[in-house]
Amino acid sequence: MAASRALFIGRFQPFHNGHLAMARRILQDHSELIIGIGSAQYSHTGENPFTAAERFEMIHRALDAERIHNYHIIPIPDTHVHSVWVGHVLSLVPRFDAVYTNSALVIRLFKERGVRVLSLPMVEREELSGTEVRRRMFSGGAWETLVPAGVAAYIKEIDGVQRIKETYKYSTPYGTRENPEE
Amino acid sequence: MAASRALFIGRFQPFHNGHLAMARRILQDHSELIIGIGSAQYSHTGENPFTAAERFEMIHRALDAERIHNYHIIPIPDTHVHSVWVGHVLSLVPRFDAVYTNSALVIRLFKERGVRVLSLPMVEREELSGTEVRRRMFSGGAWETLVPAGVAAYIKEIDGVQRIKETYKYSTPYGTRENPEE
Amino acid sequence: MAASRALFIGRFQPFHNGHLAMARRILQDHSELIIGIGSAQYSHTGENPFTAAERFEMIHRALDAERIHNYHIIPIPDTHVHSVWVGHVLSLVPRFDAVYTNSALVIRLFKERGVRVLSLPMVEREELSGTEVRRRMFSGGAWETLVPAGVAAYIKEIDGVQRIKETYKYSTPYGTRENPEE
Amino acid sequence: MAASRALFIGRFQPFHNGHLAMARRILQDHSELIIGIGSAQYSHTGENPFTAAERFEMIHRALDAERIHNYHIIPIPDTHVHSVWVGHVLSLVPRFDAVYTNSALVIRLFKERGVRVLSLPMVEREELSGTEVRRRMFSGGAWETLVPAGVAAYIKEIDGVQRIKETYKYSTPYGTRENPEE
Amino acid sequence: MAASRALFIGRFQPFHNGHLAMARRILQDHSELIIGIGSAQYSHTGENPFTAAERFEMIHRALDAERIHNYHIIPIPDTHVHSVWVGHVLSLVPRFDAVYTNSALVIRLFKERGVRVLSLPMVEREELSGTEVRRRMFSGGAWETLVPAGVAAYIKEIDGVQRIKETYKYSTPYGTRENPEE
Amino acid sequence: MAASRALFIGRFQPFHNGHLAMARRILQDHSELIIGIGSAQYSHTGENPFTAAERFEMIHRALDAERIHNYHIIPIPDTHVHSVWVGHVLSLVPRFDAVYTNSALVIRLFKERGVRVLSLPMVEREELSGTEVRRRMFSGGAWETLVPAGVAAYIKEIDGVQRIKETYKYSTPYGTRENPEE
Repeated sequence: MAASRALFIGRFQPFHNGHLAMARRILQDHSELIIGIGSAQYSHTGENPFTAAERFEMIHRALDAERIHNYHIIPIPDTHVHSVWVGHVLSLVPRFDAVYTNSALVIRLFKERGVRVLSLPMVEREELSGTEVRRRMFSGGAWETLVPAGVAAYIKEIDGVQRIKETYKYSTPYGTRENPEE
Repeated sequence: MAASRALFIGRFQPFHNGHLAMARRILQDHSELIIGIGSAQYSHTGENPFTAAERFEMIHRALDAERIHNYHIIPIPDTHVHSVWVGHVLSLVPRFDAVYTNSALVIRLFKERGVRVLSLPMVEREELSGTEVRRRMFSGGAWETLVPAGVAAYIKEIDGVQRIKETYKYSTPYGTRENPEE
Repeated sequence: MAASRALFIGRFQPFHNGHLAMARRILQDHSELIIGIGSAQYSHTGENPFTAAERFEMIHRALDAERIHNYHIIPIPDTHVHSVWVGHVLSLVPRFDAVYTNSALVIRLFKERGVRVLSLPMVEREELSGTEVRRRMFSGGAWETLVPAGVAAYIKEIDGVQRIKETYKYSTPYGTRENPEE
Repeated sequence: MAASRALFIGRFQPFHNGHLAMARRILQDHSELIIGIGSAQYSHTGENPFTAAERFEMIHRALDAERIHNYHIIPIPDTHVHSVWVGHVLSLVPRFDAVYTNSALVIRLFKERGVRVLSLPMVEREELSGTEVRRRMFSGGAWETLVPAGVAAYIKEIDGVQRIKETYKYSTPYGTRENPEE
Repeated sequence: MAASRALFIGRFQPFHNGHLAMARRILQDHSELIIGIGSAQYSHTGENPFTAAERFEMIHRALDAERIHNYHIIPIPDTHVHSVWVGHVLSLVPRFDAVYTNSALVIRLFKERGVRVLSLPMVEREELSGTEVRRRMFSGGAWETLVPAGVAAYIKEIDGVQRIKETYKYSTPYGTRENPEE
Repeated sequence: MAASRALFIGRFQPFHNGHLAMARRILQDHSELIIGIGSAQYSHTGENPFTAAERFEMIHRALDAERIHNYHIIPIPDTHVHSVWVGHVLSLVPRFDAVYTNSALVIRLFKERGVRVLSLPMVEREELSGTEVRRRMFSGGAWETLVPAGVAAYIKEIDGVQRIKETYKYSTPYGTRENPEE
């Protein structure tokens, strides 16, 4: 296998078994994996419960447990201005040969920029979505089986389920779209 | 009562009778009250109709009418990045001994930072929510009885009900989630 | 007709026949038209598919086709802080004599600032809304008849319908309110 | 004396005897004083060593020691965009009748906005400038006599002189214009 | 001459005779001129005294006086993040065939992005720099001969020289590098 | 050696021999090294010529050449608000046991936050500063011997010396403090 570097972009809220399968599959074709943590500045909300640092730790533990070491992790804050998003990514992530993602928008933005993008369909994901994992954590369902063992252990270590229960509905410190505030 | 300072954080859109009862109750245990106006940069939207300056004036009039003078009011702009929010508050608000709030997220963020937080349950709030006050102002209901007299007078002075009728559905100058735009 | 300048503010996502009719009508009363493109920094989302540059090109082609030349186009990024929005507009747009818009909030903000605002009701708009045009583009409906011919041609040139199909549900590169992400 | 409110704007890095004299003088003509703390978001640099919270505490102690109670303190973050600065101030500070400041730019910005501004020359300031106080703190000179006793005590309490010695030359965590970094 | 569009980027603080000569020269080779006003958000400082709106008006009057009508003016706010600057420009300015500028950095950024850039040396500029014009306005020198007559008249109309005298040394409302503040 | 993680913070413009010596020394005491790239969003200026992506590549090549693999690299954008900087770092960097840096301000900020900081004096640096490397690149001096061979090769690969020559004096696309603009 010739040296080649792949970029795998997601939010990893949290890093689950689907992400891990994807990482393994990408490394069949590439000698180095860069994992880009999207929406890196956000945490403590329903959609983004964990900080980039916590997501880094999850990925680190999950890949180490698999004896995968040829990877790097780079936090990528949202710009909210899509026209500069690719330039922003390219300023943070060293040159790569392929991008993997589940986001049609990410593909679109790279294509419009003229960057050649190889892409594989995500591992079949039925239950394997971050949304489902977070929903189960919030409502007391069985979430542990959806994530690598090291990730489950880490989330318990940082009291992550309780955080999700307390912050699931907030987008600002004072309230939410549903307005349980004031 | 030993000298102690309490921080009471909310959005106060508008400052209503529940807020006033809370302020009185806090001052039974503390010698000084700091009122932190959250989402301070926002105004002219459905959730945040009044500027921080207008909310300052409401609180000022309501507390003066109660002959309460041992308070200060500090506007706190949203950071939208929860991981730095406590640091942001601590850079604006002088040292305090307890925090009062209705927000589970605010409590959570202070706890994770290791700041000791005392907290009282909000005065029973049924109708006493800012959401309800704004809803009544928008739909022509009886809102005046939910707020201190000075606040009601001030809102009329600045033509606040009309502002809410005109801006209730907007989050940008051009449209809303419901899209009454273009 | 004495020299006078009108400002017409909208998002123009895309520029449609209602906008064109409005521009023509404004120019019956004014010698110069400034078109302010709102939410200028956004693109590639459901509500804001096109960049300011693309919207500029649409307006340019549509007005040139009508042999209208006494106009200028100025992109106006959102501030998200409504209390400074008028000051922001006045720092970008040269002195004008009247403002035209469909937004009650825009009218409100100018009025509170003490700027005298003349305003005409928008041309009857039933179907003539950007929301409707985008909805049709997304769902495969007949959108071309709702926009000037030059605009329709340009949108095809830049593969705009496909972009809308791929980005309609996204507000960040990783997901949406409906969460088709991860 | 009729009820009237004055706004006194500065950075107060730190609050010194000249500021205190100015506050006293303003209160001869006005029944209420609002002190606006400018550049509120900055701290730990040569020009802005103290946080807004620390500057709040300094002012609070200095005025209480003078038995002055008819004042409020409002932090005002810099916008860096001067064309919206007055609108920004007006969104944070309740209606006032006069502005006091030593800054020709502040006067200019208010005037251009059409706000009537009364202004008094600053108390004779030879040595009474924040720049001079900070310079002395940095170089080991006699700074205590330039500030109210309560301010000097507070600065010692928070180890402020040492902070200034360590941060005087930094504008980012990694270096300065003089570049003692890397 | 085939239809082609040129982009001319500068700050135009103020628009002077060198800029006008450059615009005329560009229009010998291109059928349409887009003038990009850089640092568009800034005003009331020594380097950027005039708002984008005022610079728009200067350029408008200068070109109209020359009977030049095939131009558009687009304000371009600074991003301060150079790696996304070209993407930012391309999101605001419709497709162009050549860029003209005096800035080696602008050339560099476009080249690195892979955009082909044609460029002409600026008209010989000895005295013809904005820096020199502003210096003369500040110090009472003869600046009027360096700018088009319409620009000189407009600057007087808005009391521009007095503004420069009052704001020349400020970068924030409270002080400057030279620190005449507090 | 017990498992422990060290954070080494700098700007690495570029990564030079002093940085490499420091990294080696840190790894004598710690089992894992996190390299935090400060001022991550900046590039193409005199103080920050290289993007975070380019700096990542430099460090990656330099450490791989030394057969060092127990490291991670995390870009850390400047916040410019020092009071939230530590919270910002902690949201990006997974838990660490010691911080290494040459910046007195970084040490100060961590200490005030109550984070225990171990720190070693930087390797003797006479010539080993980024400032000196960039100065030599700009003026045509011998810079290659100051950086690891892989870094020198990479800088040539991306035409880095030429970039520095063209951008050394710029802080915005239009000019510098010395003002070679317009």
